[in-house]
Amino acid sequence: MPKISERGIKMPASPIRKLVPLANAAKARGVKVYHLNIGQPDLPTPQVALEALKHIDRSILEYSPSEGIMSYRRKLVDYYAKFNIVVGVEDIIVTTGGSEAVLFSFMACLDPGDEIIVPEPAYANYMAFAISAGAVIKTIPSSIEEGFALPSVEKFEELITDRTKGILICNPNNPTGYLYTRKEMNQIRDLVKKYNLFLFSDEVYREFCYTGAPYISAFHLAGIEENVILIDSVSKRYSECGIRIGSLVTKNKAVKQSVMKFCQARLSPPLIGQIIAEASLDASDEYMLDTYNEYVERRKFLVDGLNRIPGCYSPIPMGAFYTVARLPVDDAEKFCEWCLDSFDFEGQTVMMAPASGFYTSPDLGRDEVRIAYVLNKKDLQTALMVLGKALEAYPGRTIK
Amino acid sequence: MPKISERGIKMPASPIRKLVPLANAAKARGVKVYHLNIGQPDLPTPQVALEALKHIDRSILEYSPSEGIMSYRRKLVDYYAKFNIVVGVEDIIVTTGGSEAVLFSFMACLDPGDEIIVPEPAYANYMAFAISAGAVIKTIPSSIEEGFALPSVEKFEELITDRTKGILICNPNNPTGYLYTRKEMNQIRDLVKKYNLFLFSDEVYREFCYTGAPYISAFHLAGIEENVILIDSVSKRYSECGIRIGSLVTKNKAVKQSVMKFCQARLSPPLIGQIIAEASLDASDEYMLDTYNEYVERRKFLVDGLNRIPGCYSPIPMGAFYTVARLPVDDAEKFCEWCLDSFDFEGQTVMMAPASGFYTSPDLGRDEVRIAYVLNKKDLQTALMVLGKALEAYPGRTIK
Repeated sequence: MPKISERGIKMPASPIRKLVPLANAAKARGVKVYHLNIGQPDLPTPQVALEALKHIDRSILEYSPSEGIMSYRRKLVDYYAKFNIVVGVEDIIVTTGGSEAVLFSFMACLDPGDEIIVPEPAYANYMAFAISAGAVIKTIPSSIEEGFALPSVEKFEELITDRTKGILICNPNNPTGYLYTRKEMNQIRDLVKKYNLFLFSDEVYREFCYTGAPYISAFHLAGIEENVILIDSVSKRYSECGIRIGSLVTKNKAVKQSVMKFCQARLSPPLIGQIIAEASLDASDEYMLDTYNEYVERRKFLVDGLNRIPGCYSPIPMGAFYTVARLPVDDAEKFCEWCLDSFDFEGQTVMMAPASGFYTSPDLGRDEVRIAYVLNKKDLQTALMVLGKALEAYPGRTIK
Repeated sequence: MPKISERGIKMPASPIRKLVPLANAAKARGVKVYHLNIGQPDLPTPQVALEALKHIDRSILEYSPSEGIMSYRRKLVDYYAKFNIVVGVEDIIVTTGGSEAVLFSFMACLDPGDEIIVPEPAYANYMAFAISAGAVIKTIPSSIEEGFALPSVEKFEELITDRTKGILICNPNNPTGYLYTRKEMNQIRDLVKKYNLFLFSDEVYREFCYTGAPYISAFHLAGIEENVILIDSVSKRYSECGIRIGSLVTKNKAVKQSVMKFCQARLSPPLIGQIIAEASLDASDEYMLDTYNEYVERRKFLVDGLNRIPGCYSPIPMGAFYTVARLPVDDAEKFCEWCLDSFDFEGQTVMMAPASGFYTSPDLGRDEVRIAYVLNKKDLQTALMVLGKALEAYPGRTIK
């Protein structure tokens, strides 16, 4: 048999992959599993988007342009302008989800052996896309004690080599919910300028900033406009993860041209998804506010609830819809498995993402989990109660 | 400014990229351009698929499973069985177009420097996906004189090195329309077996075989079941290129596991597209037959028409909806440009794909073009007449 690639072997499996069969087995036993592990919002897709889907009246579902439908890209220009992100239609390339925007920016900017620096914990799939491109991610730990603030500039500089091509941030952050401050963003800007780096900035959660602190886009940073590659997606903000529409935004002409070659190779992004995404940009203020308010309440509810469980600690996430919490357990991976295969409270249990999957440094995040607040409050309340019971019963509990 | 990747520089631009602005300029001058260059069928998407689209009744457009929706994959099992391709649901992974199936099979099987052998002319984007994976495509010329039959086994063996990991075929072929015979497929099988190679087989045009000769799938070849990776797509057969749904089919467990890691990284294939593709599998026999008959007629019409133009020659394509024709010109690239920027006949001209974009060997295909028969007969007739007039007027004409 011919051998698969080394790359295929190195590719990380999904961090919750091991848990999925356990969750399925639990469900097969009749146990109700509360999914705190996923990033799929339970809130409805905007009505205006669902209506657009219903009214598609075409006899041929044909290719759209490789760079995306012009009318959609024009509307994105106005959307970004609302966030003081001033870009032209020529700066916006529509991608198949934010995922493809990450992959294509790596492909266009990074050669095998090139390095990028990423604060961790970080979205696990960045690593997968880096491996696809043969690039190397070097991580700098941020810590739960400091609320996952940006590591110091010195820590970044320690990692910079002649192969360093960029810095990657996710802001507001998945998995931590951290929102970088103006001061932190300026530090990143200075690093990018000083070392002539790309700044890959994943800002898909920009609608979800909860503390009144401003959202600082990478495009707000003066003097590095051509270094910035913005990764975006409609998935989370309109609860339409399934349509697979994202975008890659850059003012760097060479990057645009290179990315377009990868776009042409895959012919076009999904046609129907673009029609839905375009309509979603007209979602009412009421829809956006309702969604926002719902997450604000859930966040408070979840974080308060977690911090009331003895030995648990969650910082207060400032954005997105996740938190990384510390649990009083020997090993969060084992605990998450145990919750699914050896525990239930009155026929109920919880599924969480062990945080170790978001770190590349071994041993970091061993007692941490990522919890998404994409369940309604009633379910969150039950899930928190069940989590408390699980922690009381878990044999590997580290506090008495 | 940080530099883009070498890979980004090496990526080929779309072969017709240079022609697009010329075509747009011609249209701006009021010239009617007949598009013989594209692979987007003009035939309607099946009614049953359009109905399924209209009746999607979901309030959340959420992620689908990374491997694709189970009910769709189950129906694909039955679909393939009709072609005597006997695979299980566990062998089928749904991809974002056939494009992603090519990319992921390369990513999962090929490391940088690994080589695959491809008969040329070949679909230009294979090269792009190989460059994405850092792999090397080695081409063996097939020739218009031999109707683009499979090159001899000796030619393959000359190219085999210790880095050779696979052979890639497209059958029925884009761009040539060639359909590999049982004997040729057996030769490929023997090579695959002898040298322990992967066989990447792109069979997206299987519905379109016109000569009564059998379609031999790579999965029909005994003894190499675990070497085969089938690339598929619903785009062409149901005229729904825009929904971006393909599949990757393999019985090789290690490949499946590896491909699934790439699938998990990009989260999921398009949800709406899968719903449409699933419905399309119920397209009536009448729809499929009408489509087939339409292509049969157009093929005859086009090929007869081409061969009646002095100095033109087209073999008779046995499948797909393209032909590669030889024109009496000094340089087909120049001729295609000239048709758009310096010629019209009564306000009409033609756009074709220069065949040089489908060869990697320099100088091959210099007097050849790829012509797609995705226009109705009336338009094809006019386009052929205009092409004849263009060839009469072209200064670089090679026959008197």
